[in-house]
Amino acid sequence: MNASISKNIGVLGAGQLGRMLALAGYPLGNRFTFLDTTGNPSAGIGDVIVDPNNQHLAEFLDKVDVVTYEFEHLPVALIEQIEQHKPVYPGSRAIAVCQNRVEEKALFDHLGIPTPAYRVVESAEQLEAAANELGYPVVAKSVTEGYDGKGQAVLKAPEQAEEAWNSIGHRQLIVEAFVDFVREVSMIAVRGRDGEVVFYPMAENQHVDGILRYSVAPLPDLAASVQETADSYIRMLLDELEYVGVMALELFQTRDGSLLANEMAPRVHNSGHWTMDGAVTSQFENHLRAVQGLPLGSTQAIAPTCMVNVIGHEGDNAAMLAISNAHLHRYDKEERAGRKLAHVNIVADTHAELLEKVRACHTLLPEAPPVAWSFEASL
Amino acid sequence: MNASISKNIGVLGAGQLGRMLALAGYPLGNRFTFLDTTGNPSAGIGDVIVDPNNQHLAEFLDKVDVVTYEFEHLPVALIEQIEQHKPVYPGSRAIAVCQNRVEEKALFDHLGIPTPAYRVVESAEQLEAAANELGYPVVAKSVTEGYDGKGQAVLKAPEQAEEAWNSIGHRQLIVEAFVDFVREVSMIAVRGRDGEVVFYPMAENQHVDGILRYSVAPLPDLAASVQETADSYIRMLLDELEYVGVMALELFQTRDGSLLANEMAPRVHNSGHWTMDGAVTSQFENHLRAVQGLPLGSTQAIAPTCMVNVIGHEGDNAAMLAISNAHLHRYDKEERAGRKLAHVNIVADTHAELLEKVRACHTLLPEAPPVAWSFEASL
Repeated sequence: MNASISKNIGVLGAGQLGRMLALAGYPLGNRFTFLDTTGNPSAGIGDVIVDPNNQHLAEFLDKVDVVTYEFEHLPVALIEQIEQHKPVYPGSRAIAVCQNRVEEKALFDHLGIPTPAYRVVESAEQLEAAANELGYPVVAKSVTEGYDGKGQAVLKAPEQAEEAWNSIGHRQLIVEAFVDFVREVSMIAVRGRDGEVVFYPMAENQHVDGILRYSVAPLPDLAASVQETADSYIRMLLDELEYVGVMALELFQTRDGSLLANEMAPRVHNSGHWTMDGAVTSQFENHLRAVQGLPLGSTQAIAPTCMVNVIGHEGDNAAMLAISNAHLHRYDKEERAGRKLAHVNIVADTHAELLEKVRACHTLLPEAPPVAWSFEASL
Repeated sequence: MNASISKNIGVLGAGQLGRMLALAGYPLGNRFTFLDTTGNPSAGIGDVIVDPNNQHLAEFLDKVDVVTYEFEHLPVALIEQIEQHKPVYPGSRAIAVCQNRVEEKALFDHLGIPTPAYRVVESAEQLEAAANELGYPVVAKSVTEGYDGKGQAVLKAPEQAEEAWNSIGHRQLIVEAFVDFVREVSMIAVRGRDGEVVFYPMAENQHVDGILRYSVAPLPDLAASVQETADSYIRMLLDELEYVGVMALELFQTRDGSLLANEMAPRVHNSGHWTMDGAVTSQFENHLRAVQGLPLGSTQAIAPTCMVNVIGHEGDNAAMLAISNAHLHRYDKEERAGRKLAHVNIVADTHAELLEKVRACHTLLPEAPPVAWSFEASL
């Protein structure tokens, strides 16, 4: 293991995930250079190279010792090109798999990780046939470029196939059976350069319209065996891909407690933001430790924690700061409908107290949906 | 109370304290502009205006909504000048008192806060007379510009008065009786714009050659009444100065448990760095909350924590990161004898476990002195 701290970290993308990586990395002595190809960087920290026409890659690579990214919808060829010059973590194979739902499902199948039943289709007719076979409703998703619920459609009957096919507008779709799940959960794990893997406690996630709203961890009603199963699934993925860094795996938990893999992300993940205040080492610091070949930090939870996303409009920030053990993380972005602007991590001694505080926070966020935890009734 | 978050924070000074203020303030949505008059800024974050010839104050003030500082040895006239244009916290009276040992002692006396016996002297003859009166040894200190043990001398006998006077080279000195203290402790407290005051648990500090090496908090053997006494002392100081922000008060604890005030600092303080990982809200975030008129955060300790300073040379950083619940905070500065380069916060479930981990950390720092806690024998 190369056990010295790198000075200059290069990050592809310059949004809030890059910002939070930098905030975690300055204390390690790292400096950050971001390569932004959107023309609208929001990191607000470090050196940002704005490069919408892909002219400044060499300049970026000159400045950095190691490269990572905050966004997986990058050309695989770009990552392969960078790999010729500087170490990139996670590597090009991880990004190739994670940005293509067909390859992702194939990997789950190969490793024996259960998923919802699915079919790959390449026409409206195939979509209708697959939906008939799986049983309605089904979800159709574009194979590439899915992000936050975009490029998806729900079919409730055969006659919706044509419209769904046209609305998504891709040549290849994945069609998935609906899962009668009890809750959505996620695993965040980290693999070091030497193959060491550490696992965070699973989080329960609440999405509305495909956008994450709340994550809570650790879970009071999670059987140890379920955590162990999730650990084993993500470990297989990490080892198979010879992965370095943080990976997120979103899963459905069904009524009988079993887990079905939904999708994975080769990066720090919104459902792991609770670790910034609720775990001994944040996902951001652990990602940086991993890509630098440093020992990984403890993933132990400190106390029950809920991450509340601030979407579209900011709430009453001062009032939120008056909630005891509430930690505000703003991204310094302009308000815009559906945009992730900030999150609040709320920590409490018990889950019941946590729920009370999260409800108080909810009243200060004009657009937040009510919180609904699967374990709420038992608190 | 003005309860909205300010956008742009101005900081006088651009060293590691400013750096850590910024790292705490980005998550609140703050941006930072530093005014550096030394020509050698090290913050490595935010916008730094390098202004050794005092030509850029207007530009600095244009950019910021509120001003604070990381260093109290600033001209009082400068703070008064800034107060005409932008809010400055803490205010000019605090800085005037804290940078002058005679005014500081007079304030302690005025408020009935006990101090070691002292005299003010203005010649070698007066120094000798005062030392004879107080009883040897005594400490002679310059009235102004004291920092980390500089401008001080210890006198063990009358014939050393002349040499001490000449070596310090100031027109006015404070001469203090030696205190037979059991330990050095410090209080960190925060006062909001609305007068709310919150107190951190007291820390025990270990200095070597006038430089802080270790701080540990909370203390397993501290009577609640002693913490209450320290709270009351610092509250009087904060209220008297109509203070806004973090204040540090260093004290000696004597054999009978009583406290004698040594000195105060109108800023975030090295002996409060443990709060970054050991308390619900760090001193840096609470200072920023205070100066912006926001609600103050909880000062509760999470677990026993020790801050280990890294002085002069860096240690084996990778090995330190392998210590469970060790948090590295590097300042991105070049190594130089006596220079504060980083600190490591170590958190543990018990003080005994903490001591073991601190000893492990000590072996990884070539120049660190052995740790010696007053309560060690009872662990």
